[in-house]
Amino acid sequence: MKSAAGLLFSGIELDRDSATPLYRQLYLQIRKQILTGRLQGGIRLPSTRTLSQELNLSRITLLNAFDQLIAEGFLVSRTGAGTFVGDEWERSANPDKTPPAPPRLSDLSQSMLSLRSHHFRGVSYSHYSPETPTSFLPSHGAFEAFPQHIWKRLVTRHVQKPSKALLGYGELQGLEDLRQAIAEYVFDARGIDCTAQQVVIVSGAQQAFNLLAMLLLNPDDAMWMEDPGHIAARIAFQAHGCRVVPVAIDAEGIDVHQGIEACADARLVFTTPSRQHPLGVTLSHSRRLALIDWAAANHSWIIEDDCDSELRYSGRQLPALYAMDQNDRVIYVGTFSKVLFPSLRLGYVILPQALVEPFCTIRAVLDRSPPTLLQAVTADFMREGHFIGHIRRMRALYQARQQCLVEVLERHLGGFFRISPVEAGMHLIAWLPEQINDQDLARELAGRGVHTYALSDYSLQHALPPALLIGFAGTPQEQAETKVMALVQALRAMGHAV
Amino acid sequence: MKSAAGLLFSGIELDRDSATPLYRQLYLQIRKQILTGRLQGGIRLPSTRTLSQELNLSRITLLNAFDQLIAEGFLVSRTGAGTFVGDEWERSANPDKTPPAPPRLSDLSQSMLSLRSHHFRGVSYSHYSPETPTSFLPSHGAFEAFPQHIWKRLVTRHVQKPSKALLGYGELQGLEDLRQAIAEYVFDARGIDCTAQQVVIVSGAQQAFNLLAMLLLNPDDAMWMEDPGHIAARIAFQAHGCRVVPVAIDAEGIDVHQGIEACADARLVFTTPSRQHPLGVTLSHSRRLALIDWAAANHSWIIEDDCDSELRYSGRQLPALYAMDQNDRVIYVGTFSKVLFPSLRLGYVILPQALVEPFCTIRAVLDRSPPTLLQAVTADFMREGHFIGHIRRMRALYQARQQCLVEVLERHLGGFFRISPVEAGMHLIAWLPEQINDQDLARELAGRGVHTYALSDYSLQHALPPALLIGFAGTPQEQAETKVMALVQALRAMGHAV
Repeated sequence: MKSAAGLLFSGIELDRDSATPLYRQLYLQIRKQILTGRLQGGIRLPSTRTLSQELNLSRITLLNAFDQLIAEGFLVSRTGAGTFVGDEWERSANPDKTPPAPPRLSDLSQSMLSLRSHHFRGVSYSHYSPETPTSFLPSHGAFEAFPQHIWKRLVTRHVQKPSKALLGYGELQGLEDLRQAIAEYVFDARGIDCTAQQVVIVSGAQQAFNLLAMLLLNPDDAMWMEDPGHIAARIAFQAHGCRVVPVAIDAEGIDVHQGIEACADARLVFTTPSRQHPLGVTLSHSRRLALIDWAAANHSWIIEDDCDSELRYSGRQLPALYAMDQNDRVIYVGTFSKVLFPSLRLGYVILPQALVEPFCTIRAVLDRSPPTLLQAVTADFMREGHFIGHIRRMRALYQARQQCLVEVLERHLGGFFRISPVEAGMHLIAWLPEQINDQDLARELAGRGVHTYALSDYSLQHALPPALLIGFAGTPQEQAETKVMALVQALRAMGHAV
Repeated sequence: MKSAAGLLFSGIELDRDSATPLYRQLYLQIRKQILTGRLQGGIRLPSTRTLSQELNLSRITLLNAFDQLIAEGFLVSRTGAGTFVGDEWERSANPDKTPPAPPRLSDLSQSMLSLRSHHFRGVSYSHYSPETPTSFLPSHGAFEAFPQHIWKRLVTRHVQKPSKALLGYGELQGLEDLRQAIAEYVFDARGIDCTAQQVVIVSGAQQAFNLLAMLLLNPDDAMWMEDPGHIAARIAFQAHGCRVVPVAIDAEGIDVHQGIEACADARLVFTTPSRQHPLGVTLSHSRRLALIDWAAANHSWIIEDDCDSELRYSGRQLPALYAMDQNDRVIYVGTFSKVLFPSLRLGYVILPQALVEPFCTIRAVLDRSPPTLLQAVTADFMREGHFIGHIRRMRALYQARQQCLVEVLERHLGGFFRISPVEAGMHLIAWLPEQINDQDLARELAGRGVHTYALSDYSLQHALPPALLIGFAGTPQEQAETKVMALVQALRAMGHAV
């Protein structure tokens, strides 16, 4: 076994060019050796003279480090006998410890890991990294078109001086100014007549789905989920232990009749009426009435994920289900991720009055209200008219981008894909020949730097033909040709005759 | 029954001074009448001539509103016959509907509502409102001393121009710059040797506790909880269905021996070693070793909530449990709410390597990473040395505030309270005469505008005498006398001889 001195010297590396003073480097490294059990309690350290020579340090540097280590109990100085590692650090280091067993996780955690690997076979979280090329990923918008100069002005307005209102724990429901602005906006845009008191700010739609699962469903409760449908929402409900009943989508949206046949007394339905996610169809008026009537008769809840209602390019915009419901069955979920930007992490829930207090109670257990600064800035952005203006510009921009991308895709890949443009949203559906496995295709394309999603990833019963989701919102017209050619090249390299 | 015209006119109120054009007001109000079933499908509207006279509107205004309503299907124009409410809106309104039954909530939601009302009898969420006087509430700091000018400069730096990195979906684990800065900080300040890869950014410690409950515990798993202890953390574990085993606190911190006697194979312990919450004692060195050894032998997890380690005024600062553990049993939770400000909503978790991927999977289901802007600003604030400087200033400020408040309290209320100053944190404990119910006292004081917390609210087994938690961090020296006198007056008005 090495001597204490040998151990000490071999472990210490001082960087004389570092901004950290030498005494502090020495302090940190000796402390680490003691904490990790490399220097054992009771061991005597070499004299400061020896250390000073071996480490090429002044005695004052050594003494500075030792003083701090002694003050904190790592070292003990015994008059006449020298300096020792504190007795309380005396314990067996386990140098030969057996390789650690895999960590014990909850059943929930295990099942989420497997859900994730099942549903996102082709998708890794690293796709969310800013370094990854966006390619045709849906839900990536025209970040470059965001009116950052206005945003900056509003941010600056709110960071002028410290105040308790801005810095302290915010209102649990969310900033009142923002809730008021949202209530006004949804009245105008979605026909929803609610008060600010019924609006709760959340950190995005996904948080809302989790909170609503906790609020409304017991484990094993049955719920209808659109099939194909929102993957992350579905995993949230599955993680909560709910029994997911897949309900098919046709040209009119979710097939209410089929849902009733499959499970008439489901306690909840998750639906995307404005623009079905991911297929893009609009829930018809008669289906809306059927859904509302079923929920009323059955005392079931409707979660209306109103995603992309702002980004409608053609077809008739219907008012929100929430606006049509007279029986307090609908909970409305909106997000700013698409129309402003994702890293803002702001969304909102509009609740029937009776659910506000229970929802806020669960919210307080899970998390607090999002950062006040960003809520205040968003409220001003809405109140001063920038929000409506921005939506209008994005709608025109994305419509033009879709039109261009459809044209270029049809020109180069019309014989391979069958492209369906969408009335709303940020991606189109490219239907593939029946024999192709869309998940394999998406994964292989991703390996070649071309990112799309496979429709099958959104499906439970796989009743539909294979298809890719191709985002258009992040593809400016002048890049369409280049990006589509990259896709063509990748497909050719994979052996497809395109 | 009223005629359609009567209904229509009686429901419409136009504001000629509003910024909203009259045609839009009319459109919104007719739409609302149709959506709410007040104007039934199939009903014929009065002629535009009649409407124009009755509402005192120009025909062009009326036609503008009607055009939009017709385009959206709310009205139908039949040549020669007039304008009708669209047939698809024909359905029974339910004017005599029975009063709604209470909403069906999950069992979890019901039990959270009752947990909340039990544990926060004296506390309402409105206390978090910016308008409420802080009084002596713990965890309210010196917001006025926050270096807002530096913060503003760093914020401005990051909102200069739009970029995908800033606006898009951020890194799931949190911004790498911030994770790196945290890894460096905890190495220096807490003796923790970890990589940025082991750090995950969360939206505050409370979110971390929920994620860790989901990650590590099955419903019905037993866990040790400090008693008295962290209320919101306990409710998070209880909400998850865990069996909470209370473990007493003595002068050395959590009583590990008693925990082993009560439940030797608990799967997890939640502890606050740096500054026990709420009593303020520091976990002794020998107890730390005992806790680590128990966890290693039993393959149990330790959640180390390192709250207020930065705010230590006296006594010896021990390194984090995480730094002493050689067996990957400890998960470290830190927050910026206390040392920066609560509405920043940023905290962090440091995990053993094997838990990083499972933790991030659950995190992706529950929520995404907090807003990138605030992570980037916090990273710069740390990297440029402002963080350490701010902590140092706050420590001096709070120490002086505590000293002053203790002195004033002892002068005026020394015969009523027994005050224990604390070595760390933001509140002191005022021990009450045995016969007083601290929850009643805190509630009555709050009714008189003097806000404190009752120690009993933090207790499961109520083994300790009654006491109030009195925050000192938010009380500048020059306000101490006035605030204490308000407390004295309130106590006198309640009949206490002080």
